[in-house]
Amino acid sequence: MALWSGRFAEETDALVRRFTESISYDRRLYPFDIQGSIAHARMLGRQGIIPAADVEAIVAGLTAIKADIDAGTFEFREDLEDIHMNIEAQLTARIGTAGARLHTGRSRNDQVATDERLYLRHEADQMRAHLASLQRVLVGLADAHAAVIMPGFTHLQHAQPVLFAHHLLAYVEMFARDRERLADCRKRINRLPLGAGAIAGCTLPLDREGVARELGFDAVLRNSMDAVGDRDCLVEFLSALAICAMHLSRLAEDVIIWFSQEFAFIELGDAFTTGSSLMPQKKNPDVAELARGKTGRVYGHLMALLTTMKGLPLTYNRDMQEDKEGLFDAIDTVSLTLLTMAAMLKTLRPRAQRMREAASDPSLMATDLAEWLVKQGVPFRDAHHQVGHFVGFCQQRGIALNQASLDDMRQFLPLATDECLALFDCARSIAGRNLTGGTAPAQVATQIAFWKEQLKGVNAE
Amino acid sequence: MALWSGRFAEETDALVRRFTESISYDRRLYPFDIQGSIAHARMLGRQGIIPAADVEAIVAGLTAIKADIDAGTFEFREDLEDIHMNIEAQLTARIGTAGARLHTGRSRNDQVATDERLYLRHEADQMRAHLASLQRVLVGLADAHAAVIMPGFTHLQHAQPVLFAHHLLAYVEMFARDRERLADCRKRINRLPLGAGAIAGCTLPLDREGVARELGFDAVLRNSMDAVGDRDCLVEFLSALAICAMHLSRLAEDVIIWFSQEFAFIELGDAFTTGSSLMPQKKNPDVAELARGKTGRVYGHLMALLTTMKGLPLTYNRDMQEDKEGLFDAIDTVSLTLLTMAAMLKTLRPRAQRMREAASDPSLMATDLAEWLVKQGVPFRDAHHQVGHFVGFCQQRGIALNQASLDDMRQFLPLATDECLALFDCARSIAGRNLTGGTAPAQVATQIAFWKEQLKGVNAE
Amino acid sequence: MALWSGRFAEETDALVRRFTESISYDRRLYPFDIQGSIAHARMLGRQGIIPAADVEAIVAGLTAIKADIDAGTFEFREDLEDIHMNIEAQLTARIGTAGARLHTGRSRNDQVATDERLYLRHEADQMRAHLASLQRVLVGLADAHAAVIMPGFTHLQHAQPVLFAHHLLAYVEMFARDRERLADCRKRINRLPLGAGAIAGCTLPLDREGVARELGFDAVLRNSMDAVGDRDCLVEFLSALAICAMHLSRLAEDVIIWFSQEFAFIELGDAFTTGSSLMPQKKNPDVAELARGKTGRVYGHLMALLTTMKGLPLTYNRDMQEDKEGLFDAIDTVSLTLLTMAAMLKTLRPRAQRMREAASDPSLMATDLAEWLVKQGVPFRDAHHQVGHFVGFCQQRGIALNQASLDDMRQFLPLATDECLALFDCARSIAGRNLTGGTAPAQVATQIAFWKEQLKGVNAE
Amino acid sequence: MALWSGRFAEETDALVRRFTESISYDRRLYPFDIQGSIAHARMLGRQGIIPAADVEAIVAGLTAIKADIDAGTFEFREDLEDIHMNIEAQLTARIGTAGARLHTGRSRNDQVATDERLYLRHEADQMRAHLASLQRVLVGLADAHAAVIMPGFTHLQHAQPVLFAHHLLAYVEMFARDRERLADCRKRINRLPLGAGAIAGCTLPLDREGVARELGFDAVLRNSMDAVGDRDCLVEFLSALAICAMHLSRLAEDVIIWFSQEFAFIELGDAFTTGSSLMPQKKNPDVAELARGKTGRVYGHLMALLTTMKGLPLTYNRDMQEDKEGLFDAIDTVSLTLLTMAAMLKTLRPRAQRMREAASDPSLMATDLAEWLVKQGVPFRDAHHQVGHFVGFCQQRGIALNQASLDDMRQFLPLATDECLALFDCARSIAGRNLTGGTAPAQVATQIAFWKEQLKGVNAE
Repeated sequence: MALWSGRFAEETDALVRRFTESISYDRRLYPFDIQGSIAHARMLGRQGIIPAADVEAIVAGLTAIKADIDAGTFEFREDLEDIHMNIEAQLTARIGTAGARLHTGRSRNDQVATDERLYLRHEADQMRAHLASLQRVLVGLADAHAAVIMPGFTHLQHAQPVLFAHHLLAYVEMFARDRERLADCRKRINRLPLGAGAIAGCTLPLDREGVARELGFDAVLRNSMDAVGDRDCLVEFLSALAICAMHLSRLAEDVIIWFSQEFAFIELGDAFTTGSSLMPQKKNPDVAELARGKTGRVYGHLMALLTTMKGLPLTYNRDMQEDKEGLFDAIDTVSLTLLTMAAMLKTLRPRAQRMREAASDPSLMATDLAEWLVKQGVPFRDAHHQVGHFVGFCQQRGIALNQASLDDMRQFLPLATDECLALFDCARSIAGRNLTGGTAPAQVATQIAFWKEQLKGVNAE
Repeated sequence: MALWSGRFAEETDALVRRFTESISYDRRLYPFDIQGSIAHARMLGRQGIIPAADVEAIVAGLTAIKADIDAGTFEFREDLEDIHMNIEAQLTARIGTAGARLHTGRSRNDQVATDERLYLRHEADQMRAHLASLQRVLVGLADAHAAVIMPGFTHLQHAQPVLFAHHLLAYVEMFARDRERLADCRKRINRLPLGAGAIAGCTLPLDREGVARELGFDAVLRNSMDAVGDRDCLVEFLSALAICAMHLSRLAEDVIIWFSQEFAFIELGDAFTTGSSLMPQKKNPDVAELARGKTGRVYGHLMALLTTMKGLPLTYNRDMQEDKEGLFDAIDTVSLTLLTMAAMLKTLRPRAQRMREAASDPSLMATDLAEWLVKQGVPFRDAHHQVGHFVGFCQQRGIALNQASLDDMRQFLPLATDECLALFDCARSIAGRNLTGGTAPAQVATQIAFWKEQLKGVNAE
Repeated sequence: MALWSGRFAEETDALVRRFTESISYDRRLYPFDIQGSIAHARMLGRQGIIPAADVEAIVAGLTAIKADIDAGTFEFREDLEDIHMNIEAQLTARIGTAGARLHTGRSRNDQVATDERLYLRHEADQMRAHLASLQRVLVGLADAHAAVIMPGFTHLQHAQPVLFAHHLLAYVEMFARDRERLADCRKRINRLPLGAGAIAGCTLPLDREGVARELGFDAVLRNSMDAVGDRDCLVEFLSALAICAMHLSRLAEDVIIWFSQEFAFIELGDAFTTGSSLMPQKKNPDVAELARGKTGRVYGHLMALLTTMKGLPLTYNRDMQEDKEGLFDAIDTVSLTLLTMAAMLKTLRPRAQRMREAASDPSLMATDLAEWLVKQGVPFRDAHHQVGHFVGFCQQRGIALNQASLDDMRQFLPLATDECLALFDCARSIAGRNLTGGTAPAQVATQIAFWKEQLKGVNAE
Repeated sequence: MALWSGRFAEETDALVRRFTESISYDRRLYPFDIQGSIAHARMLGRQGIIPAADVEAIVAGLTAIKADIDAGTFEFREDLEDIHMNIEAQLTARIGTAGARLHTGRSRNDQVATDERLYLRHEADQMRAHLASLQRVLVGLADAHAAVIMPGFTHLQHAQPVLFAHHLLAYVEMFARDRERLADCRKRINRLPLGAGAIAGCTLPLDREGVARELGFDAVLRNSMDAVGDRDCLVEFLSALAICAMHLSRLAEDVIIWFSQEFAFIELGDAFTTGSSLMPQKKNPDVAELARGKTGRVYGHLMALLTTMKGLPLTYNRDMQEDKEGLFDAIDTVSLTLLTMAAMLKTLRPRAQRMREAASDPSLMATDLAEWLVKQGVPFRDAHHQVGHFVGFCQQRGIALNQASLDDMRQFLPLATDECLALFDCARSIAGRNLTGGTAPAQVATQIAFWKEQLKGVNAE
């Protein structure tokens, strides 16, 4: 019989047990459940609500149970529904009456909310470390290949030459914001629900602030109905992961495209690619493909929890049990993707010559030509038109921009001089974009130094 | 080393193995994988591509492997990535060279697409049976409580009296359309990819039509690149499940609201409700709540696969491996929900008197009054206004519509007679709505008979 | 004052009017609303519920109103909330009492459900025509460039050579299934809600079957609560559009990648590309990019309606008014995308020589080599290994497969003969894949002929 | 011809213009576009890139254009694609050459990213003000009805008595977190893209920091490719709105349920409810229903942008134009919902007596009884069992808990005394939950005072 079965005349139906159990997945919360229960028991003791000897027995019992679960020797029972009941029932089986006092002044509603926040706080820190590791790999790649030039793309079309390092650092910025978002979310995670009881608080003299201190929470939640009835910090966490997955999917797409035979911009290690069951020549960028594909799963879990929470009346409803599996899977997915992508990127080698050839297409320097005209006093819009017509002319002739004669050029750019012909050099073009945030080597070097410094203080995973 | 490792100089990285493996979840496909492989091997034999003796060895070997997996004695290996490689490698370990011939003229690309379709076809049939079972329970409830009257709601406000049976049969209609959708989807599932190879077909003289016949497919897919590169029948299946989950969430919401102390329209069996860890009096409708909450998960899996497939270039990309876990979970979720809701509904008892009292609120018969005026020749819009003002008058007086005098009524409805006073009877109101689809007992009886007949031929789960 | 205001003591708040109005978008339904109202009025007349003269006045009045709306001279009023009330109020203003009889035996609940189904039925037919048009363009391209050879891709890596036409026909298959899905959905759309009233049917002797016949519905909905309370055919329609958008996004991705300078597989007309405000040389594949990007919007609208419908108690709830804007936008988006992509594809020109060069990479024929070994009796798995090692050998030497000597090859493929060297020909490889669904010219020609025939009978948009 | 048309030989196709234009919706950005352009022009002048006189002409011209748009007299042209080109083209038409200099050192890529951030920053502030207004209404309601007692619900079942004010304050907490999230997002919004150019920065000596200062940005974005290629602050904003919509949907659900005839916990003003076209008695809580229903739309727009951004290679792709319509609609939707819900709640009146009756059900005090036993030294789990069995006993007898005799009670609770009988008082139960966050009047009064203080400093909308 369930621990709550007092008023019930019938046993729970077997199908219902299977439908409603969560022990198959919420066991993951055990270290946090035990951590929270120990703090709760100590507080009950301090407040004189339960005897000091019982507190000692509870702490010892829970510590032993944790050791058993760590060791894989604890037997979980589906009929006890969830991790909380499994631990409490086992504790009471081991230490008797003291165990039956643990749940004093507490409901599973505030207990599970507390466990989830302890878990999320831990995962927020882990995820930020994984992000920093990936950033480090990207900064390292940028640093190691600081002189490599490639075409910058918009619309997957050649736009302007950029440093390969500059392209990589764009991702470092994205992952930095992902870390910021998790840090902001952590502030909202780190508030204590315990003491909210089922819904309304408790008639016993609990010390919520003391529990918060012991567990490292910044504050106690101010409203008991909110404490047990909302899950917005979980949704926010999933949102942050979804945005991170979006960033990963873009990095993956770049890698996949660069690795195609047509681009041939990069090489990847054999250990980070896989083959085909049929086609013997295949070497596929599966890691990047899966990183991209797993975006769907993360978005889906976000949408799932948003849907589940939509339109629920206050306060706790059993629907909210559905807050865990998707969250856990999203966290596992993004963590593993971050790790695997970082490891794969370590094996990435730019094919510098091939990239530079692509970046040397003189049409990539058309903007430089227009900006040169601006420096001669031509209004930009006119400069753009002049160069545009000149590009059209070369296109029709089937020649590259730097194959036109100065006379040809002057038909369209009356002010053109020999200086213009020198603009069709991708290294010069890059060096010229020497503003904060630009792709010039000096700027990129500054950014690399900045990130090295920034990431120094961050724990690796 | 992987079976495809010929060209590789390095072993796959352990992290990559973990990131890319699917054996932890795609093992579920084993009966279909083996069924497909047997048909493939027999065809290879018939076409003279592999020796007849090898076919026999393959069929026997695969049959034995299936028995081992059924029995739980088969050892799955993560380093062999997926169910297909696990089975093939084991087969070759057992029967030697014959096993090494099984993958002739086939790629994992067309193999997995075939397995998925065999699996989905099976699940479509199962799901339709589960839906029929739930429909049967609903029809049974309607039949058993055919005379029970309740208020019909729009906007969760009293609208007009209806039969409880009529309300239940609305869900029978929804689930019938869910079954239709799965049947339509099944047509698109039941086409054979095998023979498409990796992408382009095969240079060996395969007999795709023969394989299709043996496996019960209606046709072979007409384009090899489409066959291995699309997953739209999976998305369609998930869409059908999402709509079904939507229907389940609404039925669940009705049950939850009816079971509140304020409504108190129904009772539910103890075996299908659960209690609270803190509040001893609690008896909660958890099954309905979880049925409603799990909608999020099903929607999420649909969104996940749509996202994963978005923007993939042709043909197969490794992203598509992500097509399985969400699909499997959606199928498990909806199946179990259908079964559990059906079982719970069997314990539902309407509190007929309480429902009828609620339906007897005379304002529910305001429309009857307006329609009575129409029968006297009053244009409907005028009739509506007259009754509306009369309702407002009663509201201000704080009386029910049937507590007003005929004289009071005539202030607003000049044509009112004693007959009007008789309209405030919910049973009469119901009996009067005797059109196809209406709530009159005769109509509802016809519908119950119709559904009993319809569901007779359908296999129960 | 609203037409339903009889019982209300206060005017609706201005903010509420703005929040609840739908006339700003549901005016689109006017031809269907009028069509439905005319059929309803005629039935009321036939059944003797309203006078014949009033029917004539109604029909004439509605016809005139339709003409005014068509002409853009009808004045819509926000205070009348929606298209239904706007038309009814105007009708009554024009024809007096007869107009006030139109809404007899009908609620907005069944009226709007009917309008939506008439609209959706129309749009399903339009959308199928647009799909057929796009298919025709693809088949035309395939036919015009039937001999063009390109590398077939899996994982965006060279897999095996295929005909460009074969690649295009894969999309024809996808869009064919999109058309099938819409046809199946249409069956569920084409059932009549009218006569369901607000929720429970009607006490007047309506003839629902007659209305169904006049409006071309296949059947009447069998349950009045279901008729006004469900929206699943809208969700199904959105699902079908989401899958279609997914297919479009993939076609778009292929076009974008092919159009990159690195692939350079295709050319696109100037009229179907756009430039940059800054970079004068740019010619961007914006149509394909937007087609890909708009996938998000269509998925979003599907998710929106699923979310809105989740957990609503029966029957109609005002939430369901949210069923329209997203649906309309999804329909507009997919329609316009189909048309614009079709027009853009007409300007697409394959750069056949560039494609063929890419397809001539001999590693694309590695599978042919393995299959040749199978024909010599080598078990496939061994053949795959032999070729894999041979590929690795060439890779290390930095040579193409066809640059190795026969002796080199024999180190790995003991059975190799001169015949093997002839396999590295992409045209031969393609010709060899001559199974149903394969890429051999004969197969592709059969498919082109099949589709021309299939699409002959389908109306263009 | 488009402003970028220099290199093109053909006019853009009319269908393409219609497919790619954004002027129909991005015109909303005009004040921000003009604000950004003025700052840009001034900087160009300060840096000596364009003449001072031109700067003056530009500023005057843009100011005049803004006035015209404000006044509704500006004519937007679809062939000029977007708001940026419409304004620039008009400016040049008005002031000639100076206008042609405005786009110097700038691309639409960095321009649109800047406009969006200025717009979002503004909307973040507005939205926070709207949230504060709604909070104020809730706090006001709580304050005005501070003594009203109602049943607290979990699982939509009676749990424990709570103050109505406590229930309302739970929502104040949720909306406070929504405001926090927007404030955090604002930090990431408030960084300047301008100066990133198309992708790589600029060869002209722009002063990005100066522009940032003038426009009130906290910093300049550090990487030009990131600046034009990412949209994560938009996704984050949509996530924050989705969570807010979730909270609104729950508040709406509570209102709808409370307003049902069965609950009858509240009254709502006539001006904030609407009627039925058919049923004259209807008074529906449409505002709350639409607030709940519109959740779908907001979730959908979040999913849409996540989908659109998934898998895009760096940097800008035209897909990203799809970032606006959904964002705008989500902002409009949530803003209007906040305003309308706040206005509706001002008319909400609790039916205090009815609520208190419901809260007086003695089973709601079962937890108090168990906690009383704990105070007598009974381990909680045993206390829970004893009370549970006692509840079951009363249930079977068909009596309320307070109708049992002390002797009956002692059969299950051996330690029970007369004191126990006094526990079945809802006011006493509430007063006893006097911990931080509990529902006791003292706690709730503290919270009301806290929120009044907090909200004092916040601007109303």
